[in-house]
Amino acid sequence: MSFREKLKITVKKNNSLLCIGLDTDTNKIPKHLSDKGNTVFEFNKAMIDNTHDLVCCYKANIAYYSSQGTKGLESLIKTIRYSHDKYTNIPVILDAKRADIGSTSEQYAREVFDVIDADAVTINPYLGSDAVEPFLKHKDRGIIILCRTSNPGASDFQDLIVSPQVPIENHLGGGLARTPRENEPLYLKVAEKVVEWNKKYGNCLMVVGAGWPEEMKKIREIAREMFFLVPGIGTQGGDLENTLKSGLTQDKLGLIIHSARAIIYASSEKDFAEKARVKAIETKDNINRYRK
Amino acid sequence: MSFREKLKITVKKNNSLLCIGLDTDTNKIPKHLSDKGNTVFEFNKAMIDNTHDLVCCYKANIAYYSSQGTKGLESLIKTIRYSHDKYTNIPVILDAKRADIGSTSEQYAREVFDVIDADAVTINPYLGSDAVEPFLKHKDRGIIILCRTSNPGASDFQDLIVSPQVPIENHLGGGLARTPRENEPLYLKVAEKVVEWNKKYGNCLMVVGAGWPEEMKKIREIAREMFFLVPGIGTQGGDLENTLKSGLTQDKLGLIIHSARAIIYASSEKDFAEKARVKAIETKDNINRYRK
Repeated sequence: MSFREKLKITVKKNNSLLCIGLDTDTNKIPKHLSDKGNTVFEFNKAMIDNTHDLVCCYKANIAYYSSQGTKGLESLIKTIRYSHDKYTNIPVILDAKRADIGSTSEQYAREVFDVIDADAVTINPYLGSDAVEPFLKHKDRGIIILCRTSNPGASDFQDLIVSPQVPIENHLGGGLARTPRENEPLYLKVAEKVVEWNKKYGNCLMVVGAGWPEEMKKIREIAREMFFLVPGIGTQGGDLENTLKSGLTQDKLGLIIHSARAIIYASSEKDFAEKARVKAIETKDNINRYRK
Repeated sequence: MSFREKLKITVKKNNSLLCIGLDTDTNKIPKHLSDKGNTVFEFNKAMIDNTHDLVCCYKANIAYYSSQGTKGLESLIKTIRYSHDKYTNIPVILDAKRADIGSTSEQYAREVFDVIDADAVTINPYLGSDAVEPFLKHKDRGIIILCRTSNPGASDFQDLIVSPQVPIENHLGGGLARTPRENEPLYLKVAEKVVEWNKKYGNCLMVVGAGWPEEMKKIREIAREMFFLVPGIGTQGGDLENTLKSGLTQDKLGLIIHSARAIIYASSEKDFAEKARVKAIETKDNINRYRK
């Protein structure tokens, strides 16, 4: 089943837009788990088993695994296989922010889809179309392109004001649902390009960080139906209410609200999985409050 | 020893600006190697042993290894360890194009420097300063930031014209060696930021693709002494002469000319390593012709 179908089913079944981030830091795993064979996997398994009815998807950031070498990679693969086997309809996103020249992106697509078997992957747009296409052509997977990220440095380049370079009529040829301004920031140029790619491949999403509701509003004007992956709620401090008001589509969908540390490290004691569940319910309910 | 020192020593010792790319594709390894235990490592070892006196550094693109799962990662680590043990002064660059929010970039820095032990790494600038800093603070390593890449899609975003947003006097405060234009492309904004980072950390380089000599000239105006990693010669077809004329520093240094496929796949027969050596000599000599 494709990422898109899985997401649709699970959003509806669990009535949830919450994505839990399995960014499992070996230093933060409850100590009592350390006598198990693969503590990272055991931790993730406990998270998944205790929250599978609360989420629309999971996301694992590969950096937390690759920093542990081959053992980390094994834990990641085992986690995704476990989730796929037991909870077939829950998609798992790999946050990897990959991209390279075309022939190399082909190799990365193998890493992400063949070796790790993620349902979706995050992609960095800086290298342009031919770097993204080897991912896009996997139409059954979700391709989530960084647009406006949640970190403080995001403004360094993403907010730079870009001058129009193409005649307005060409510009409108892309079928944008708005009148383009004379000058607009780079992240909106990226958003426009993603809309273009999505017309061709139908499998695009964008990363739009919480904490920047004005930016999110502008991106939503360009991509009225597209799902956005939204990091930055929780530990990063993004404002949930304004994020949802700015980003939800008309049918109260279109956002995947990501939270990792605030949920998975809710407790470091033996009750870690139960406490994570409590925190996940709270977060899911907070999100749904603004979807009514 | 730091990346910078190793590079300096090896450039001088081998009188070379050639970087051979160990982008080892399992489908392209000569068939007779397939009865060896770890064919990727055996191939890389043969490449290194036959070219170590011809290069200024090696570069391995991690995508070619991670596409092979944990086994691939093991081959990569083994290759770099072999090179470090036997040819202590030759730096090895990991082409990984990493970057994420600060806390995640810390994890990637562990992957690259602790697990894989690369001397330098390529970094994608799209996420901004806090995504790059966890790498920059490893002052003994080389941090090679994508500026203007060699692929066709590079122009999609990197060439977009950006309006000035800061007063000219602030802008000049960074100590740029030129008068900034009113409007300039994104890749030059990135170059300016890299110069800023380099003032603080002293370990920056940039990726500037071959085949765009005009762009390279502009970047050289901003970063007069910095080393650029230059992919795109060879199979990608970039013009060596114009690249060197545009990019060499006054002392005929400042460029690391990367070639992978054209050298490492010069033959797929038993003479593969000898043919690679012949091609490497030829490429090195071609480069040096324009350094006189």
